[in-house]
Amino acid sequence: MIGIFYGLMSTATALNKYRNFSEWFDKLLLEARILDDRFPVKGFSVYLENGAYILRRVREMLEKELRETGHKEMIFPLVTTEELLGKEAQHIKGFSTEVFVIESAGGKPLDVKLIVRPTSETIMYPMFKLWIRSHADLPLLVHQSNMVYRHETKATRPLLRVREIPWNEAHTVHATAAEAEQQVKKAVEIYRKVLDQLGLAYLVLKRPDFDKFPGARYSIAFDAWNPDGRVNQVATVHNLGKNFSKVFEIEFETRDGKRENPHQLCYGFGYSRVLAALISQHGDDRGLVLPPVVAPLHVVIVPIVFKGQEESIKQFCYGVAERLQKFAVKVDDREDVTPGEKFYYWEKLGVPVRLEIGPREVAENRATLFRRDTLEKQVVAVEEIEKAVETVLTSIGQSLAERSWRIMRQMVVEISSIDEVKKVISERRIAKFDWCGSVECAEQLKAAAGGELRGSRFDELEVPSGPCIVCGKNAAEVVYFARAY
Amino acid sequence: MIGIFYGLMSTATALNKYRNFSEWFDKLLLEARILDDRFPVKGFSVYLENGAYILRRVREMLEKELRETGHKEMIFPLVTTEELLGKEAQHIKGFSTEVFVIESAGGKPLDVKLIVRPTSETIMYPMFKLWIRSHADLPLLVHQSNMVYRHETKATRPLLRVREIPWNEAHTVHATAAEAEQQVKKAVEIYRKVLDQLGLAYLVLKRPDFDKFPGARYSIAFDAWNPDGRVNQVATVHNLGKNFSKVFEIEFETRDGKRENPHQLCYGFGYSRVLAALISQHGDDRGLVLPPVVAPLHVVIVPIVFKGQEESIKQFCYGVAERLQKFAVKVDDREDVTPGEKFYYWEKLGVPVRLEIGPREVAENRATLFRRDTLEKQVVAVEEIEKAVETVLTSIGQSLAERSWRIMRQMVVEISSIDEVKKVISERRIAKFDWCGSVECAEQLKAAAGGELRGSRFDELEVPSGPCIVCGKNAAEVVYFARAY
Repeated sequence: MIGIFYGLMSTATALNKYRNFSEWFDKLLLEARILDDRFPVKGFSVYLENGAYILRRVREMLEKELRETGHKEMIFPLVTTEELLGKEAQHIKGFSTEVFVIESAGGKPLDVKLIVRPTSETIMYPMFKLWIRSHADLPLLVHQSNMVYRHETKATRPLLRVREIPWNEAHTVHATAAEAEQQVKKAVEIYRKVLDQLGLAYLVLKRPDFDKFPGARYSIAFDAWNPDGRVNQVATVHNLGKNFSKVFEIEFETRDGKRENPHQLCYGFGYSRVLAALISQHGDDRGLVLPPVVAPLHVVIVPIVFKGQEESIKQFCYGVAERLQKFAVKVDDREDVTPGEKFYYWEKLGVPVRLEIGPREVAENRATLFRRDTLEKQVVAVEEIEKAVETVLTSIGQSLAERSWRIMRQMVVEISSIDEVKKVISERRIAKFDWCGSVECAEQLKAAAGGELRGSRFDELEVPSGPCIVCGKNAAEVVYFARAY
Repeated sequence: MIGIFYGLMSTATALNKYRNFSEWFDKLLLEARILDDRFPVKGFSVYLENGAYILRRVREMLEKELRETGHKEMIFPLVTTEELLGKEAQHIKGFSTEVFVIESAGGKPLDVKLIVRPTSETIMYPMFKLWIRSHADLPLLVHQSNMVYRHETKATRPLLRVREIPWNEAHTVHATAAEAEQQVKKAVEIYRKVLDQLGLAYLVLKRPDFDKFPGARYSIAFDAWNPDGRVNQVATVHNLGKNFSKVFEIEFETRDGKRENPHQLCYGFGYSRVLAALISQHGDDRGLVLPPVVAPLHVVIVPIVFKGQEESIKQFCYGVAERLQKFAVKVDDREDVTPGEKFYYWEKLGVPVRLEIGPREVAENRATLFRRDTLEKQVVAVEEIEKAVETVLTSIGQSLAERSWRIMRQMVVEISSIDEVKKVISERRIAKFDWCGSVECAEQLKAAAGGELRGSRFDELEVPSGPCIVCGKNAAEVVYFARAY
């Protein structure tokens, strides 16, 4: 059952990330200085310098898109109250089993217990009620990068199932249903743009009704593929309709003087899950393979020192580094570490480009350029070095994306029976089939195959070609089915 | 008692910030879109777009300095445990009365109660124990911008006394006491550099022993002046010695093979208090006066429209904006708002430069430039506009700093008796005098004058010229005394 993945990979050998994802992933997190999971409270981790750097870069990329599309950054409190959380009936039902509650302060019980935010609807919307008076106040587009807290009862896994979740949440308010629908598409485009810059591959799915966000009319989600065949929900966009504006009494005066509840959206982009996808989609047995756009270091220069030539080779390396000032570049001239150990170390960290410079390179005024994604080497004249590095970095970004999308496509298998669903899931792939739309059929599949019905394509119309594979009745949509994080 | 401040100000009229600071400050926060204090949980506020923007800019400026001085950014969890918080005896004593405690999750009591961080020593140091093995791992310099939570029992005040506190905390580990002392000076220089870029004036004081950070050997603090005569502690640097490394069992192997506990520092920079200082030191009756380095908008262009010339004036304004692309520039061409209302609005928001452009300016190919700090106007030829704006922005940054430091110096009054301390405090100024070093004399002063003994200059040696003003015995140091936030 592992066999099928041989065909999915660009290199000839099977990778540990497909053989044993958990072990490969957990080990790499610490070794590549992404995250330390030994913090004494379960579900809470420490992001080390590389993890924190990548999270910051992804955040900057997303926030730039949000800013340029008119979202205002604001900072809302960590806490809500039971009263506020309870206003929207579905919302409290969805979150009450997993919220952390602050019951005391300074050794004394609090008069009003504080709920640590699992998401910020009930924190932001009482303020929206104060801010929104007329149609001139709309649309309101607000965003915040923060941490939310959910007491996961399932087994925790670093980055993927955690209790402290770094993300960005955006909340928008619109005068009309049509504008709200438009904003759903805009939000999807914003997220797509960022994920595409990261070279990640994903499905944009409209979740089935039974799996929508608590309190939403409908939910769109980005499911990224993972080497173990599970999908990783990295972002979601929810159309809340008037569900929240009614209970939070948000009203505006229309152009013709009527009072109405506006339409609302909320959408979230999971930084830690995107970080997980970056590691697991692009990484290999040697470690991280980072798209240049998030790499803390673009180029590492390793001198291959020979006795008597130490100084001249080092000087040559620094000269080359001087030519590469527009990139994040470093000369690793540690004297107590062999070149081989340096190669191993920087490959683990996913540095996109390595330049090897020994006596021969110095003599011929060139460098040997190694690219991390394909492991290929080429020789580059020093005069051409800046251009060559630029070309290779661009190429790495593109080829990582192409490879990820190729694997995503190969992971999805179109099938037409329950037995095939079971087989596809056991092979760690994603099943695609026609479905009638009933909860019963979805549950029957879940029981049989142990995955989840993730929904139908939002970004592309897919028309059923046959009946529902479970009940044989008319199919309403083409859906994707997989195990999920 | 208000009278003395007339002399302190650059304009001829007394400002409301000196007459009635609280009212002036609270009103401005909402009107200038800094903060909304109507959030339903006491001590928690919402930072609006301008507040969030300035916090972000200050954070970027500080983090740049930290990065360039070798600090690694990491992200540590929100929570610690009672066991960890209790390890250092003074530390728990200092914080136990103000920590928020998470006692349940998902409706069920937690096995181990979680303490919401009031600061992160007890969260970071168990990890430091895992990371530090030998002298080669030192120094370790780590920083994180986050929120900390303290259940203030005194009256809350937006930005100054809040329960959710945005700050940066840095934590460092060193092999020797000498290196740790060196790092104290480096940290002070980092903070000084950022505060100086913001044009803020402050005293760098070594706190008296009875007022040091819980668990520290000694504490250095930056006290910024406030218009009501209170000082505003914006940053602190603490030398922890081996107090924490001993109880958290952090050990390293020295070059000669011995095992030792390292020396530690922690230092914090309060973003919300710095924001408060920016508003209160630089602001005036018209609103914010922002140093260009943190202003969301540098230049606003207001067309002074006359009938029939609307389009030509507007086009001219956009032409001028085109010349100012290196700044954050905006043409306010709203048609339903008068120029006067626009002036009022953008002055409130503290935009450093306004350009007024009417028919005369268009005819003569020039603009009228208004600078927010001095309220002065000058006429500038369009060809010179970029250079003129650049010069004025630089000048605003400098003159705000000069004015703040002038007021700081005038606020400090050297005195030589308890009665004078009372008088100085009632005049909303800062007293400076000789002190023997005893807790008793400090407490006697506090009881008499209602302020606090804030400590002696860290950055400059000041030698007592007479005896302790309380007991008449030999004075040990020259100290500063003020009411404080």
